[in-house]
Amino acid sequence: MATISDIYGPGAADKPELNNNFHVDYVIHFLIPPKERDEAEAAFIQVIQALASAGFATEVRPGGDRASLLIFCKIASEKLLRAQIYRSRLQDYLYGIRTTAPPSRKNQGGVEVDYNSYFADEPVSEAERLRLAYLLISKPRAEGGAGITPKGTLGASASPAKGGPGARQSNVAAQNKFVASIFPLHDHAFNRAWLRKWSTKYMLDAADLDAIRDKFGERVAFYFGFMQSYFSFLLFPAVFGFFAWLAIGQFSWVYATVNGLWSVVFFEYWKKREVDLAVQWGVHGVSQIQLPRPQFRFEREAKDPVTGETVKIYSPFRRLSYQLLQVPFALACVAVLGSLIILCFSIEIFMTELYNGPFKQYLTFLPTVLLTVLLPLLTGILTNFAEQLTNIENYETQDDHQAAFVQKIFVINFITSYLPVLLTAFVYVPFGKVLVPYLNVFQAVTHRLAGAHKGSAATDHTAIQKANFQVNTHRLTQQVISLTVTAQIVNFLIEAVVPYVKRKVFKAAEEIAYRGQSDVTAKDAPEEAAFLERVRDEATLAVYDVSIDYREMVVQFGYLSLFSVVWPLTACSFLVNNWVEARSDAMKIAVSSQRPIPWRGDSIGPWLTSLGFLSWLGSITSAAIVYLFRSNTFGPDHSPWDIKAWALLLSIIFAEQVYHTVRAVVHYVVAKLDSPGLQKERAERFALRKRALAESLGEDEAEKALSPGVTGGVGVTNAEKITRAAVEAEARELAVKGLDKPEDIFWLRQRGPSESVQVGRSLIAEFTDTSSNNTIHNGNTTTVPAPVKEL
Amino acid sequence: MATISDIYGPGAADKPELNNNFHVDYVIHFLIPPKERDEAEAAFIQVIQALASAGFATEVRPGGDRASLLIFCKIASEKLLRAQIYRSRLQDYLYGIRTTAPPSRKNQGGVEVDYNSYFADEPVSEAERLRLAYLLISKPRAEGGAGITPKGTLGASASPAKGGPGARQSNVAAQNKFVASIFPLHDHAFNRAWLRKWSTKYMLDAADLDAIRDKFGERVAFYFGFMQSYFSFLLFPAVFGFFAWLAIGQFSWVYATVNGLWSVVFFEYWKKREVDLAVQWGVHGVSQIQLPRPQFRFEREAKDPVTGETVKIYSPFRRLSYQLLQVPFALACVAVLGSLIILCFSIEIFMTELYNGPFKQYLTFLPTVLLTVLLPLLTGILTNFAEQLTNIENYETQDDHQAAFVQKIFVINFITSYLPVLLTAFVYVPFGKVLVPYLNVFQAVTHRLAGAHKGSAATDHTAIQKANFQVNTHRLTQQVISLTVTAQIVNFLIEAVVPYVKRKVFKAAEEIAYRGQSDVTAKDAPEEAAFLERVRDEATLAVYDVSIDYREMVVQFGYLSLFSVVWPLTACSFLVNNWVEARSDAMKIAVSSQRPIPWRGDSIGPWLTSLGFLSWLGSITSAAIVYLFRSNTFGPDHSPWDIKAWALLLSIIFAEQVYHTVRAVVHYVVAKLDSPGLQKERAERFALRKRALAESLGEDEAEKALSPGVTGGVGVTNAEKITRAAVEAEARELAVKGLDKPEDIFWLRQRGPSESVQVGRSLIAEFTDTSSNNTIHNGNTTTVPAPVKEL
Repeated sequence: MATISDIYGPGAADKPELNNNFHVDYVIHFLIPPKERDEAEAAFIQVIQALASAGFATEVRPGGDRASLLIFCKIASEKLLRAQIYRSRLQDYLYGIRTTAPPSRKNQGGVEVDYNSYFADEPVSEAERLRLAYLLISKPRAEGGAGITPKGTLGASASPAKGGPGARQSNVAAQNKFVASIFPLHDHAFNRAWLRKWSTKYMLDAADLDAIRDKFGERVAFYFGFMQSYFSFLLFPAVFGFFAWLAIGQFSWVYATVNGLWSVVFFEYWKKREVDLAVQWGVHGVSQIQLPRPQFRFEREAKDPVTGETVKIYSPFRRLSYQLLQVPFALACVAVLGSLIILCFSIEIFMTELYNGPFKQYLTFLPTVLLTVLLPLLTGILTNFAEQLTNIENYETQDDHQAAFVQKIFVINFITSYLPVLLTAFVYVPFGKVLVPYLNVFQAVTHRLAGAHKGSAATDHTAIQKANFQVNTHRLTQQVISLTVTAQIVNFLIEAVVPYVKRKVFKAAEEIAYRGQSDVTAKDAPEEAAFLERVRDEATLAVYDVSIDYREMVVQFGYLSLFSVVWPLTACSFLVNNWVEARSDAMKIAVSSQRPIPWRGDSIGPWLTSLGFLSWLGSITSAAIVYLFRSNTFGPDHSPWDIKAWALLLSIIFAEQVYHTVRAVVHYVVAKLDSPGLQKERAERFALRKRALAESLGEDEAEKALSPGVTGGVGVTNAEKITRAAVEAEARELAVKGLDKPEDIFWLRQRGPSESVQVGRSLIAEFTDTSSNNTIHNGNTTTVPAPVKEL
Repeated sequence: MATISDIYGPGAADKPELNNNFHVDYVIHFLIPPKERDEAEAAFIQVIQALASAGFATEVRPGGDRASLLIFCKIASEKLLRAQIYRSRLQDYLYGIRTTAPPSRKNQGGVEVDYNSYFADEPVSEAERLRLAYLLISKPRAEGGAGITPKGTLGASASPAKGGPGARQSNVAAQNKFVASIFPLHDHAFNRAWLRKWSTKYMLDAADLDAIRDKFGERVAFYFGFMQSYFSFLLFPAVFGFFAWLAIGQFSWVYATVNGLWSVVFFEYWKKREVDLAVQWGVHGVSQIQLPRPQFRFEREAKDPVTGETVKIYSPFRRLSYQLLQVPFALACVAVLGSLIILCFSIEIFMTELYNGPFKQYLTFLPTVLLTVLLPLLTGILTNFAEQLTNIENYETQDDHQAAFVQKIFVINFITSYLPVLLTAFVYVPFGKVLVPYLNVFQAVTHRLAGAHKGSAATDHTAIQKANFQVNTHRLTQQVISLTVTAQIVNFLIEAVVPYVKRKVFKAAEEIAYRGQSDVTAKDAPEEAAFLERVRDEATLAVYDVSIDYREMVVQFGYLSLFSVVWPLTACSFLVNNWVEARSDAMKIAVSSQRPIPWRGDSIGPWLTSLGFLSWLGSITSAAIVYLFRSNTFGPDHSPWDIKAWALLLSIIFAEQVYHTVRAVVHYVVAKLDSPGLQKERAERFALRKRALAESLGEDEAEKALSPGVTGGVGVTNAEKITRAAVEAEARELAVKGLDKPEDIFWLRQRGPSESVQVGRSLIAEFTDTSSNNTIHNGNTTTVPAPVKEL
């Protein structure tokens, strides 16, 4: 299997094994390394027992490679599943994610309520079932789960045995050591329809996103939601950029301004859109319900003084002290990657523009080779460092851990992606004339090498053309074009083709290795052989990591924000690329990855900060590039000292302040816009209010209270009657008591509003009548039991 | 009365009229201008009727000045008050401000619930009663209120008749035209104890704030809460500043850094503290419950598509277009106030440092006179403009209106407070030598004036000492000292003494005016005469506006943040000033203002933005001042061209980026700190969760679910049993159905975990045993109705 045409080609729809998941919730791919057979066997027994005690039915089948087992799990009883879903929905309600609580389990009489009607009204979606099943598998045993997590979980692989203080934890670690992966089975019928649909349309719509969300969960759906918004927004800079390219050319401040404005609008729009999508999907606020990180190490347990709950404590200040390691880490990244990039950059300039000796045609590729070999190596090492660092920071929740990791990865990506362009724009072009002569160190090196290899014959040819050196002012443009076109294509190939080839090779190698040995799969029962074959194939696939896709998009956004003023067609290139990208990402999920666990999420998370940062930095680099390159500053005879530093800095400061102002304004405007999510929220709040009022005030009054214009008017319609009646009642009461206090008498002088009016009018008359006479003005003549005072 | 010693001197405690408010909720001071007598009389009748129909008992007495009435109101029935409070608490619950809803009015049987026990458990505080009473007075009649608001309400005075489109609205406007003020009566016993207590202690504590909150509402309490935090925080820069002044001197980057850091820490701390106070006071989130602005003009009414409610709509884009007027407004402020300040500044320099002609001793005061006369005039005009502009922007809620107004006022305050210092620091000192010669225009003016007045005799004396002109580099220091010491004292005098004198004079003038006319107050009933005398006095007091006090503190914070690097003792001066300030503000509320209406609030509102802005700007001005003045750049022979602009700009950019980074770090750290408010919130949430779980799962299970370590473990203890039972039940079911589907057979091969283990172990054995034989590996030998496959 494993090829696209096998799964999605003609006739695939008729293959029963592709349309039937055998009621399996999850498959656990369990390794049996021959050298650790006994250990693995013990762990296997533990896993099965843990699954059973967590409430799963299990079936075991051999893996495809004679060194692994496939453990099929399904939640054994409908009752357990419902209890889990009930609990999860109740928690959602308590955190304000749902507006309605599920019905109480026991009604007033103490009789169990029948839940069939509740679950018929709010059915359990596939994503909900799978998510809760996975939580049940992965939760610690003390909390009722099976405590099984794949060994490759982010952060788990890094010496989990050292992590936990107790024996229990290392026990769990031993159990999970052989769990290669835990994955649900693909719904190939859905995938087939999905890919077919997307390949024929230009834009994704809300229904497409909803479909993804129902199958793969909100976290994946958010990625495609982001892609969709970003793609739609790219249309504008693509069109504008095209005309700018035709009419204005490069380095135009008009383009820079429009582009900066666009990036701010997009960023602010997405912040709103994100909330909107979360509300529409009913997951707004789920990031509050944090998944605990199993690898979290606590320093001590303590009783919460307020709630009496036992809480695990790790000093935030200790964590902060570890977080400060990020500063040396960032500096190390800059130093390590920076020096590699500067080295390659220098060699490249030396080779292409100065060197004229032997092997020039080969040596020109030296920097590319160096970069291709060393950059992934160094990046890998630094990423590993970043992971270790994040582990040391010891976060309590998955989200915090992920965010901290992404932050570090962003530093690495920033340097590898943007430093070469920044070097060209702000070092090579302005200061090339001054700096390039120092590249003569390479001359000495080539000299010596040439001497060592072939005697001193070629020395004369290595003469550097120092006198003729001209800064190649087109290098910046060439570099930006290459990064925004070539690099995107290369990326696509790496992402789409390499895993496919890798798997093919791997499979072939496996077949050769096991040739001659009896094939375990030959003993599969015929009615499930095709199904097992398919599952074995899915077990070999990679786990889909959405953050890699986010990273790619964020880096791309950075090119657009930071450097597109160099080449206004950038957005056109990205527009085309992203159409393909969305489809190839869909393909990646459907064909070359295991089906992702449908996690929820209410945001693109830490990437949002990165987008904001790049949008801000774009305002600065664009201003600086426009200032430096706008006219022919760098003619053949330019000197770096021609640049007016104060003007450059002033334009940067100006651009930055404008950026902040514009952002505040755009934020304000975007907040005013109505949206489906807001409408939904309003509707829910209204329904909640109506229900609460109906419960508290009774149906009739609630209806009245909610009707327009009378909000808050309860019990007021009869106010006049109340006043009169109340005053009279009070008067009677006072008459009984004896009425000796002045404050009691005070309120009895005028009985009811008509008397107040009367007294007031007489007072007014008196004011204007200067010859005042003794009219009654605050007494009254009616017969009341209170002492009436005649003045 | 009206003097402090009368109310709070010895013996005051024994005066009954000061300790008894006669059960009055509110007093409405109603004007009867002799010229509009008939109109006023009609309005008076309307007001009384409106009050009665809103549920108030009223008593009318003459005002003190023969041209006004005092309308005493109290909520007539306890039932109405309770209905209002019930409604308000229910609304708080619906908006998430309270965690518990008040009990339903009717229980399941439809019988009215007795609320006495509820109100005994959660008694009605004085602030709550007064707030709801005021809402009842001010709410529109359509919503059950009396629709009475004082004519001086922010925004109401500005042509309310033009405001509303309908007749009803202008009717209400006519009614309110004569309402001078609506105020509750002071609790003098409390005030006396309050002032006495505060005058003997250095720091305010939580109990002091709580007492203020219970009497004057959260909005006023927040001001004192802010004062308290600010005062405590000032201790650090005061001590540090003192030592910096001794050891480091002026213009030190060390001081600037520490001061900037302090301002960031204070700002971030306050943001947290604010939330904390709001949570402690149970008002966190009340800013969501927006008070509608009666002056709001809607364009059309429409049915909300979602809720079906009728909503009043005013296009936000139209509002935005009016909001854009803020830009020309700000420019106008800069132009008008700026040119006045520059003019006075120039005259001052000319007079003190250049001019040597006749009348120098008098002319030196010319700029001070000009500023004293013209600045309040222009500020008044611009404030009026700001108010008009805010009215045009037509906000729906009081809070939005207030925030927009404060924003504009801040622009005016910024210019009047800081522009003079900014001019000295960044124009006069660096460029004085170049610019001052242009002041010769004044020579021409003085020349002409001198000539006009006394012939051409004195012309020789007006010779400007141009050659000798030296920039007075101490001017900046002198100016900062004068603004931070002298100006604070002047402010205090204006705030504390002027209103007192004004009232004395006003009272004397009144007495003279009405001399000879019969005194209306002579007819007061003897047992209430002293009380009425006191109320008449309170009616003449000003309305307390907390935003004036905030403004003063924010401007002060600005001096500290922006300029204290010039004179490190600034904070010492402010420390002393603020001790007095807090007491004089208390005095202002207790003695020289009407008792404020106890509004709620959950923040210091728009001033927070101003604080953040000043803290940010401080990083820039401090860096610039340090750079410009740090060494003796401005010696006698300096030229402005000695300043390296690029270095100045670079230090500004650097300082700004450092500021943003530090702020992010401080924000993160402060967020980690625990606080009483957070603890309270956690406790409430825990109680809510416990209650919800108890209701849904029953007491026992809830207890279990909340106990440590078992969160989420419902129904799992019996999982093993479930699995087995479920599988067997399923098997029986399938046997009946006939078992033709492979997925049914799939799950029946291994019955229970023990069989899975067995099969797995045999598979593992098989993997390592290369000479494979046909062991049973996924069948079983027990008698099941499923077809057992032997391989």
